[in-house]
Amino acid sequence: MESGSDMRDFSQDHRWLSLNTATVRKSRGVEAALTDIIEDCARRGIRAISPWRDQVAACGLETISLLIKAHGMELSGYCRGGMFPAADAEGLRAARDDNRRAVDEACELKAPCLVLVVGGLPGALAGRAAYKDIALARNQVKDGIAELLDYARSVRMPLAIEPLHPMYAADRACINTMEHALDICDELDPRRSGAIGVALDVYHVWWDPKLRAQIERAGKSRLLAFHVCDWLTPTTDLLNDRGMMGDGVIDIPLIRGWVEDQGFAGYSEVEIFSAGNWWQRERADVLDTCISRHRSAV
Amino acid sequence: MESGSDMRDFSQDHRWLSLNTATVRKSRGVEAALTDIIEDCARRGIRAISPWRDQVAACGLETISLLIKAHGMELSGYCRGGMFPAADAEGLRAARDDNRRAVDEACELKAPCLVLVVGGLPGALAGRAAYKDIALARNQVKDGIAELLDYARSVRMPLAIEPLHPMYAADRACINTMEHALDICDELDPRRSGAIGVALDVYHVWWDPKLRAQIERAGKSRLLAFHVCDWLTPTTDLLNDRGMMGDGVIDIPLIRGWVEDQGFAGYSEVEIFSAGNWWQRERADVLDTCISRHRSAV
Repeated sequence: MESGSDMRDFSQDHRWLSLNTATVRKSRGVEAALTDIIEDCARRGIRAISPWRDQVAACGLETISLLIKAHGMELSGYCRGGMFPAADAEGLRAARDDNRRAVDEACELKAPCLVLVVGGLPGALAGRAAYKDIALARNQVKDGIAELLDYARSVRMPLAIEPLHPMYAADRACINTMEHALDICDELDPRRSGAIGVALDVYHVWWDPKLRAQIERAGKSRLLAFHVCDWLTPTTDLLNDRGMMGDGVIDIPLIRGWVEDQGFAGYSEVEIFSAGNWWQRERADVLDTCISRHRSAV
Repeated sequence: MESGSDMRDFSQDHRWLSLNTATVRKSRGVEAALTDIIEDCARRGIRAISPWRDQVAACGLETISLLIKAHGMELSGYCRGGMFPAADAEGLRAARDDNRRAVDEACELKAPCLVLVVGGLPGALAGRAAYKDIALARNQVKDGIAELLDYARSVRMPLAIEPLHPMYAADRACINTMEHALDICDELDPRRSGAIGVALDVYHVWWDPKLRAQIERAGKSRLLAFHVCDWLTPTTDLLNDRGMMGDGVIDIPLIRGWVEDQGFAGYSEVEIFSAGNWWQRERADVLDTCISRHRSAV
């Protein structure tokens, strides 16, 4: 692999594995407590996690903050801010306020960035889109990020726009390519200050013929997070049928090579939503598999 | 709508409605004969169809050709050629030969173009991808189109590359944006001879922030077909949960306006794969709904 010569060797340990805690959100189908997830990660020498706000809230922010500190763990990101578009001014204000709280929580947890899933057509997630004008949604997203960026800069919390796969354009995120995300970064932060960049999840962008060029455009200063899982064939659900690394068709080492060629030296964050498979298994089994696949398939 | 001032008025009749016959592939869940579909279309004054090769083969090419002629119908396209990538030379040859037959059938049916669904990673459709190198698949696609184009030119059958939604990149088509499709058109036919262009299906491209710019780049000479349906929220199946126009979130008139601004004056082809809804209904109901939605939502 031409770009791989200088890649970090993951085959010997899992020093650079981070666990996105949605991957073990459920164990045998039952919702898991984040405290238990953290303990199980610490026991296996997993040094970083990326928790979700609802999981943190269920245990209490201070509890989680102390537990992470006690284990000497890091965060690879905090999931998530975003969902900026709204049908009215009240909705836009609510999104703004909620995003500021997300920034504050990320600070408390010493996250390296707040991941932004920017939102789509307001109401679409509930099956009732308030409007069809995706250009308007995109403008609301840009305005929302711009406003949040002022606040996030003031508390030194970087924002990581996560371009989501185009199949989520309607209901989850109307930023769907690295190119689009980087256009917004360049517009809001032309000096590449480090205040805003992208979270690259191979699941969302692996298909893009411009991926390598856009990773090169991003450069180290914009590459704030790197997420891995795999694309299954067939994929039976648009949201919750992600594959374990190695079980699908994504050439993950190729993409990691491109990212590391830019100087990225952070965690590979495993983020798998899998209602029918991994969420039905024992958490220990899932974590052990993440570790072994991190060595063999990332 | 700024671009809509010169759009054709579809509200009064269905002169420019074409039926992609996959839309009524099944009636009450039972496979339908293409001859019956054509008769029902003719009865309703639907003046054009776009049939699938397997539907034609089931009735016989000559039978269908004569029936279409007898009703004075047109084709808006022929579905479909493509599936170029393969794991070995034998597979590549088989694809080449099959595509030439598809061109011949398109000629016999006097189609204005052969639609190309170009294929993805070989074997992925059966859940066993022969390789993960999507760049290789894309090269095989380009080589396959180039070779087919020589033959298609000789018999004057235009080829229409259909960029498929990125969620089909692995198993159905690794050309997923208008931009990528047009890059290939420009490389293979820089003179814009009319021998190759794109089939734009709103379902596949509606999300693309560069859609309008790429439609303008395509221009009339590259816009060979225009397909409509709708994106449902939620979408419960990656392949067979398309919506009837008006039932989803796509601003179809906006996109049609952009296409017609380029001088496109052809059919709006309704193509709905819907295992759980429209394929469960009576064909008469589906056809009548297509006609009314063509007037109100296209």
